[in-house]
Amino acid sequence: MTTLYLIPTPISGNALHTIPPYVQEITRNLDVFITERAKTARHFIKSLEPAKRLQEMIFAELADNQDSNEAEKVFLDAVRAGKDVGLLSEAGCPGVADPGAAIVALAHREGVRVAPLTGPSSLLMALMASGMNGQSFAFHGYLPPKRPELARDLRRLENLSRQNGQTQLFIETPYRSQMVLEVALETLQSGTMFGVAQDLTGAAEFICSLPIRDWNKLKKKELEKLPAVFMVFVPK
Amino acid sequence: MTTLYLIPTPISGNALHTIPPYVQEITRNLDVFITERAKTARHFIKSLEPAKRLQEMIFAELADNQDSNEAEKVFLDAVRAGKDVGLLSEAGCPGVADPGAAIVALAHREGVRVAPLTGPSSLLMALMASGMNGQSFAFHGYLPPKRPELARDLRRLENLSRQNGQTQLFIETPYRSQMVLEVALETLQSGTMFGVAQDLTGAAEFICSLPIRDWNKLKKKELEKLPAVFMVFVPK
Repeated sequence: MTTLYLIPTPISGNALHTIPPYVQEITRNLDVFITERAKTARHFIKSLEPAKRLQEMIFAELADNQDSNEAEKVFLDAVRAGKDVGLLSEAGCPGVADPGAAIVALAHREGVRVAPLTGPSSLLMALMASGMNGQSFAFHGYLPPKRPELARDLRRLENLSRQNGQTQLFIETPYRSQMVLEVALETLQSGTMFGVAQDLTGAAEFICSLPIRDWNKLKKKELEKLPAVFMVFVPK
Repeated sequence: MTTLYLIPTPISGNALHTIPPYVQEITRNLDVFITERAKTARHFIKSLEPAKRLQEMIFAELADNQDSNEAEKVFLDAVRAGKDVGLLSEAGCPGVADPGAAIVALAHREGVRVAPLTGPSSLLMALMASGMNGQSFAFHGYLPPKRPELARDLRRLENLSRQNGQTQLFIETPYRSQMVLEVALETLQSGTMFGVAQDLTGAAEFICSLPIRDWNKLKKKELEKLPAVFMVFVPK
């Protein structure tokens, strides 16, 4: 049965050991890929030492605006030719915090089998490592980049967590990590838990999850410019 | 540095291929485990063919009430003896939809390094495979088990998704899967997306994600008594 494989990729550098061998094996045998960025996808596929030459494979890019007609056309052409297709994100699991969901939805509409494969997800690993509530949580993507709006949104997430007991997760671009930490320490209440997980599975992996009052006692309150997941949780 | 390893386990049967070799290798060398149920954990550790005998290892169970004093004592004793500890869930990723977070929070308070490892998560793989919004989502654990309360809660999740564009995830015990599907088909609006993911990575893997109106057109609307993740999403 024609299948759309959802292929996780490393979330830090070339950490190929985080991709299980069965995922590498399935990926090695595909030759049509829908990608967030073709260049990153080619680099990953090449690292798997596939049987076919990269020049014989098709890499279609998902457009930023999600009306990704070219990628959809490549997907439908492959499916009609009876070919399996791989969906790849820039890093981690496709369909989560990336534009990949549109192709998955199309696969369901077309009756194509969808097969999610196992691999690293920075969101899930950050949540696991937070010690916050893993029985109820919400992910919000990016918060507003400017300080006053970010502070307001952090208070909104704090209120949500207080009301629902729900862990609140969000992400930010690497160069804004330090700003997010500063605004959180200024804005959130002293008993509120705040968590940061950076460069998960990588050499610079950094995970810290503490009440604001304990963050304020730390000597070093500086974050590297690395991909980060942030979490807010108000304990009962 | 003394480390608490968060060790994912297979989410279907003995699907050991979903656990990357580096995770198996780390796990093989530990001899203190905090577990949801010791019996399941012993079975998993045995399948890894560890160097030590199982009788020489410590398996402490997390209490259901989360005031898990025995597990906390075992953890603290191990840490004070300079030993690394593994945290295991019944299936999938510890700290997510299980009682493991209490030990992770304790590790942070004690300054013990927390290392999340890569592996299968039914929630994350269900979300990847849904084609619904993966840029904003919330997990709610179990909904009420009785039909009228479940219908009310499904309407609440539908409203949340309409307001926030957020994918709503929940779980239910295997023998209630069919009831959940029936109530969802009766309750949700025709354009609302409803998704079911069962036995992910297993031989009976079943994934279906469609608008309610298309679910109603399916000939077979019966779910097996298998672990399931359910999803609700209202497209714009």
